[in-house]
Amino acid sequence: VILAAIEAALGVARPLSGRHAIVTSGPTHEPIDPVRYIANRSSGKQGHAIAAALAALGARVTLVSGPVGIADPAGVQTVHVETAAQMLAAVEAALPADVAVCAAAVGDWRVAAAAGQKMKKDGGAPPALQLAENPDILARLSAPGPLRPRLVVGFAAETEHLAEYAAAKRARKGCDWIVANNVGGTGIMGGEENEVLLLSDEGAQAWPKLSKREVAGLLADKIGKFFA
Amino acid sequence: VILAAIEAALGVARPLSGRHAIVTSGPTHEPIDPVRYIANRSSGKQGHAIAAALAALGARVTLVSGPVGIADPAGVQTVHVETAAQMLAAVEAALPADVAVCAAAVGDWRVAAAAGQKMKKDGGAPPALQLAENPDILARLSAPGPLRPRLVVGFAAETEHLAEYAAAKRARKGCDWIVANNVGGTGIMGGEENEVLLLSDEGAQAWPKLSKREVAGLLADKIGKFFA
Repeated sequence: VILAAIEAALGVARPLSGRHAIVTSGPTHEPIDPVRYIANRSSGKQGHAIAAALAALGARVTLVSGPVGIADPAGVQTVHVETAAQMLAAVEAALPADVAVCAAAVGDWRVAAAAGQKMKKDGGAPPALQLAENPDILARLSAPGPLRPRLVVGFAAETEHLAEYAAAKRARKGCDWIVANNVGGTGIMGGEENEVLLLSDEGAQAWPKLSKREVAGLLADKIGKFFA
Repeated sequence: VILAAIEAALGVARPLSGRHAIVTSGPTHEPIDPVRYIANRSSGKQGHAIAAALAALGARVTLVSGPVGIADPAGVQTVHVETAAQMLAAVEAALPADVAVCAAAVGDWRVAAAAGQKMKKDGGAPPALQLAENPDILARLSAPGPLRPRLVVGFAAETEHLAEYAAAKRARKGCDWIVANNVGGTGIMGGEENEVLLLSDEGAQAWPKLSKREVAGLLADKIGKFFA
């Protein structure tokens, strides 16, 4: 109450004070053997910016991050993981939460049987990597139940059929909002800018091309209004 | 001649003046589709340190580097590549050279048919990734011919049977020296230290655990003596 009074006096809007947000960010790495792994081009810039923006609006933020080359955001509790299975475990350990934003590019597949020793070329035919489906963190968070966050936001990174694939994903996963972007050959993945489509019950909003920090700020504002 | 006289006067030993060295470093990334790829845990620290150490001994150095999170060494011409095929092309473009040091962790395999669009989970069984063998840069450099560097140095990163696998690799590839290390669960890959076994016609030398910079310095000194 005193803090709120001070904030009101200072004109600081902290609409997410007292709320807990979980944000996932970055890629996952799925081991093939002790030295090789399957990765993806996510830099973590968008997810980390969202974590920082939610913290700036007063939320307590748990950021669950895959392997990235960028710094942990200030004022955010960051948990570092490598695989999708580890990310799911860290997210579940961080529940309950009011809002979850799944910005990580979680590998859909892991290698079914990762080798315990480095795989060798044996002179024969190259191997085939049998893949197995990873746990679906967004679908698990979105499933009805006592621990479901009131607001679950997913991301859809597509290289074609953006609006169609994103709408199908929103329905399939059961999340509330989807932030969709086209990552095909446009410098989005790893870049500093993002051009997104936001899908919710209100329909689709096409945001202009903005810096990832600006996208994070707008999304955090929208989340703040949701909880106002 | 004037430079050599100045160096002699200053007591600076530049045994590799006038020599051209090619060094490969870092991992390769082999695309699965526009967003996913197969990678390995090489940080490039050892290869980059070797490039810097050779330059310090007077060599003109071309460093061909896969995707790494570390800076280009000063005084070295660095060529950035992603895949094994691109690394081979850059190495061949840099020939002729007096010495080649192949420190990169080149992926043995690429995905036989990388997808042009992001692969989707379609609800059926997870896919299998059919792999195809990558070009063998070390074997190509080591093959007899007018462009073979006088000294070709390979690396062997193993998780078991280190001396045995490294000796077999040296014979199979036809390189002159092999720097072998055990990368199994010891913090070598990505770490700051290295403990190597050096195989040459003189037999095997087991170097103590040293910083990667010290390993680079010792190796560059040995290369300098080879050309003295």
